[in-house]
Amino acid sequence: MANLTIKDIAKICGVGISTVSRAINDDPGINQNTRKRILKVIKEYNYVPNNSARNLKMTESNTIALLIKGIDNQFFQGMLKIFEEELKKHEYTFLLHAVGEDQDDVSVAVQLAKEKRLKGLIFLGGQMDYLDTRLEEIGVPYVLCTVAVNMTAPKRKCSSVSIDDKKESYRAVDYLCKKGHKKIAMISGKSSDQAVGGLRLKGYMEALADNGIKLNENLVRYMKDDIPEYSVANGYEVTKELLQSKEEFTALYAISDLTAFGAYKAISEAGKKIPDDYSVLGFDGIEMSKYFQPSLSTMKQPCEQMVKSSIELLMDIINGKDEKKQLIFQAELLERDSVKEI
Amino acid sequence: MANLTIKDIAKICGVGISTVSRAINDDPGINQNTRKRILKVIKEYNYVPNNSARNLKMTESNTIALLIKGIDNQFFQGMLKIFEEELKKHEYTFLLHAVGEDQDDVSVAVQLAKEKRLKGLIFLGGQMDYLDTRLEEIGVPYVLCTVAVNMTAPKRKCSSVSIDDKKESYRAVDYLCKKGHKKIAMISGKSSDQAVGGLRLKGYMEALADNGIKLNENLVRYMKDDIPEYSVANGYEVTKELLQSKEEFTALYAISDLTAFGAYKAISEAGKKIPDDYSVLGFDGIEMSKYFQPSLSTMKQPCEQMVKSSIELLMDIINGKDEKKQLIFQAELLERDSVKEI
Repeated sequence: MANLTIKDIAKICGVGISTVSRAINDDPGINQNTRKRILKVIKEYNYVPNNSARNLKMTESNTIALLIKGIDNQFFQGMLKIFEEELKKHEYTFLLHAVGEDQDDVSVAVQLAKEKRLKGLIFLGGQMDYLDTRLEEIGVPYVLCTVAVNMTAPKRKCSSVSIDDKKESYRAVDYLCKKGHKKIAMISGKSSDQAVGGLRLKGYMEALADNGIKLNENLVRYMKDDIPEYSVANGYEVTKELLQSKEEFTALYAISDLTAFGAYKAISEAGKKIPDDYSVLGFDGIEMSKYFQPSLSTMKQPCEQMVKSSIELLMDIINGKDEKKQLIFQAELLERDSVKEI
Repeated sequence: MANLTIKDIAKICGVGISTVSRAINDDPGINQNTRKRILKVIKEYNYVPNNSARNLKMTESNTIALLIKGIDNQFFQGMLKIFEEELKKHEYTFLLHAVGEDQDDVSVAVQLAKEKRLKGLIFLGGQMDYLDTRLEEIGVPYVLCTVAVNMTAPKRKCSSVSIDDKKESYRAVDYLCKKGHKKIAMISGKSSDQAVGGLRLKGYMEALADNGIKLNENLVRYMKDDIPEYSVANGYEVTKELLQSKEEFTALYAISDLTAFGAYKAISEAGKKIPDDYSVLGFDGIEMSKYFQPSLSTMKQPCEQMVKSSIELLMDIINGKDEKKQLIFQAELLERDSVKEI
């Protein structure tokens, strides 16, 4: 049954192949009774029209692809379900496509858009610091979601949804300063990271400067290159090393909630308590951080809103609106139990 | 540049369209110098052959799809990166496709296999309790990975990789019994779950029986229907209710590490300590469980091996081996710090 062709369907229905094709593609020229009869047979025999052939005649599919860079990033993973549900509400087919770390985002997008005749696509993650001319190659509507955007660059010709990583990181560290902390360590991204990691590090430095605190480079701890980025394991190793260095600090600012979780373990193993001995502040606001012990104070990114807005911006472009929008969302400081005033 | 057609390429190269087509499809009939020249132009102009058209002539693509049911399942999410890397090693393109909770796995697979001309596919998760005749519809090589398989059913005509959920759950609970526990509570799946949740519950019941412990139904706690399954939040709510019920127990067996993490929080909020007041045992062995405080004793599923074996079995089928294999992997009991002998 699985191998029925359009010819077989035509034969069963007693019509020509082109009539079956018209029925499948909902061509207005076809008699509606004939169409119903053909679709019934198609259903009965579980015939799947070959999309490769159909696509040649159709201008596009009803598919929107999510191109995710960093498939092991738990912050992104938490957004997948929301994308799936929201796109379903809009009656689009959701295609999730992983882009390898060493793959070129634009090339992958161009290829996918052509092959699958995408209606549109959303980039999740990645640096995307391409020239506008390269972005134009993509050829179908697209939106950048939570992509590190260099705020000083001229406005891009594309729609995007993000937070201002530098500003929110500044707010996080400023909060620690206002709580009386002067020796604030940071678990930063990898030393080579010019995207999210680099921007948040800049925010840290500026907040210290504005609070009259001199930067102590021994308190800036870069993630290890040989352990997955932003992972619990990386946070653990980096914090362990920091504690062993005997460099004094009273607060630790972790670039992600998961690295903060690793820090919790390292601090506990050193026989120290949070927040009595060390305050810890996270970033991301993943669901799980509420259940840390003590529950983690963190800068929460508004994931759900960011997903919904990405899709709305994409719909605008699909529906022909010319204007591109760059939406910058605010993170929310969740004051919970891991930061103490000193 | 993005909209160059095969006609444009032919014109630029000074050859006919069919010659460009032969170059793209590596037809042996083409002069190799001509072919090189055409491919160079294609690369130079960043021309992407339209796969929809190409597929009509080719029998299949080089793509292997992973169909994941339960995209918010963190246990599966941890396997995605391994799939991506392993398929890359085998030089296949990795396509990740999410199947909705209410979608029919086989129909989605049939559609996808035809549309994308898949080389093969792997089902990750889901119940897949279909009749063999329906599975035959799929039409391309496939393997079931970590799908709940009813061990008493006659051997399926398909290759699969799984653990024996009932047996491993039995081992977990038997371990608690051997540690002297007689009042063992369980955070089970949803009450309607006949798949993984149901099998692990059966294992729990049989282990109790074999250890001469009468089942106390008040100690079996089903996950809430209105909270995501297997989540931290669900484990927290269920354990909180259990503690408030004043039903006595000394050990808690959680159906997943994440629900165990929720239990940690509920137990701590009740002013109790692990393992002094309550022993806790998890299931899955996710990376993070090592960093729980105290580190979680758990039944570790051999994710990496399961992914690798799924791909190897698929390769066997693709390469024409007729024999189908059902591989059952053993979980590994990780004795860490959350279970105490009493």
